[in-house]
Amino acid sequence: MKKVRSKRLCIIGVGLIGGSLARAVREKGLYHEIIGCGRSVANLERAVELGIIDNFEQDIGKAVNDCDMVVVAVPLGAFKGVFEQMKDHLPDTAVVTDVGSAKQSVIEDAKKALGNAYQNFVPGHPIAGTEKSGAEASFAELFQERRVILTPTDDTSVEAVARVRAMWECTGAEVIDMEPAHHDEVLAATSHLPHVLAYTLVDTLAAMSERDEIFQYAAGGFRDFTRIASSDPAMWRDICIANRDAIMKVLGQYQRDLTALSQAILNNDESALFELFSRAKQARDRSINSD
Amino acid sequence: MKKVRSKRLCIIGVGLIGGSLARAVREKGLYHEIIGCGRSVANLERAVELGIIDNFEQDIGKAVNDCDMVVVAVPLGAFKGVFEQMKDHLPDTAVVTDVGSAKQSVIEDAKKALGNAYQNFVPGHPIAGTEKSGAEASFAELFQERRVILTPTDDTSVEAVARVRAMWECTGAEVIDMEPAHHDEVLAATSHLPHVLAYTLVDTLAAMSERDEIFQYAAGGFRDFTRIASSDPAMWRDICIANRDAIMKVLGQYQRDLTALSQAILNNDESALFELFSRAKQARDRSINSD
Repeated sequence: MKKVRSKRLCIIGVGLIGGSLARAVREKGLYHEIIGCGRSVANLERAVELGIIDNFEQDIGKAVNDCDMVVVAVPLGAFKGVFEQMKDHLPDTAVVTDVGSAKQSVIEDAKKALGNAYQNFVPGHPIAGTEKSGAEASFAELFQERRVILTPTDDTSVEAVARVRAMWECTGAEVIDMEPAHHDEVLAATSHLPHVLAYTLVDTLAAMSERDEIFQYAAGGFRDFTRIASSDPAMWRDICIANRDAIMKVLGQYQRDLTALSQAILNNDESALFELFSRAKQARDRSINSD
Repeated sequence: MKKVRSKRLCIIGVGLIGGSLARAVREKGLYHEIIGCGRSVANLERAVELGIIDNFEQDIGKAVNDCDMVVVAVPLGAFKGVFEQMKDHLPDTAVVTDVGSAKQSVIEDAKKALGNAYQNFVPGHPIAGTEKSGAEASFAELFQERRVILTPTDDTSVEAVARVRAMWECTGAEVIDMEPAHHDEVLAATSHLPHVLAYTLVDTLAAMSERDEIFQYAAGGFRDFTRIASSDPAMWRDICIANRDAIMKVLGQYQRDLTALSQAILNNDESALFELFSRAKQARDRSINSD
């Protein structure tokens, strides 16, 4: 059994989420040392400069060596490779967690790749973010008063869950548990579908002949509506693939609803339009704290 | 010929837009008196209390009497009735303008209802707003550094256009001219379609069995994306009817693009997804000043 020398945290993927987590736990002194790992040397060097991480290591095996907490914060398509590379280098006492936006695919990857370490893997997802990417965009307050969802399975060590929970609570987040499949459905509806719709809208308009003029007259509502279309394309490609079934289900329902609305416009059906818009406004006003 | 006693402005519909215009021109002392007109006495009384208008009159004929500028800021479905009621009471020198989100339907209503006064009607549309409604939500800075589009026709008096332009410039807006049909196409794409999509999304999610939970886990991106679904339902019903053809055209294209994206997800077509998301991100980052 390898011995953990000190409280060391390894963040694989020092981007907006990984970097913000590092900043937040550093402020609380939860770890003695924070190691960054990732593919872009420039980003890792910048993260050291900014004081987000203490140092970095590009070899995943070396990066996780001697760490007691490993956080995987890479696009979902990279998880399998990352798990495979860390497997033989993890201390027995190390806990591994992640921040992926879909949980069933990550659990499957972890189960296949982590071997014995799988029981110390705690699937997690902080419900926080901006449209920006990279260490530069990270900030310690990102998780304050936000939710972090953990989706442990029957195989997950209870002690590992407790350690991941403690880490996130120290960022100011509220930590809750959820079934993995249920997480994937809820996130498909509230996050993945809106991103798909926003990307499509910008792409539809960008293909129009008056594209320059169109974007020129876009007002505040449009800016807010399409902000999420400035998110990282690789990350969202991977989410669409990883959470395909749940996304397809809610997207299909959305397309049916949009067709019904389109029919109401075509038919000058004023009462159907008023009813739908009123119902939506009420649902949003009731449920969402707007500002 | 009726004589205009002093510089009087009449705002029909003292809501977010009408109220903000009144506040902005009042700060510059452009008019000696500002009369409000509208259906809700409570809203008009509040507007007087807040110092937005000097007094109010619920009869449109009396409200426009002796005014040299009349601004119609009501939902598009109410324009025809408003024009008919003011027609016989407008001073010959009065200029009438509006703030409607679709211009061809307003021009048609004005042409039919205003008689001789039609030549002094200047169709206009400030590209500004929030999801809030009512006089209470208005603020003088709403139009600062925003665009106001005027869509005069061949019949419109050049002097009337100049007076409306001067009014809007005094709010800090940049005033530009556009063909009515072109305005309606550009706004269908940048404003009307996004509202339709956001209302539909909230309605789709609100109909799901996990609706309460879904809204509970909605993060910042969702809040921004759906903010416009908190807009006034009557206003947006009327916009969908008034600008039906332009909205149907861009909505149809959007539906085709969304179906293509849905097919790419279904087929695990990673390169199609990456390409689309990258293209959209680039288009947005290049064209939109995000914050």
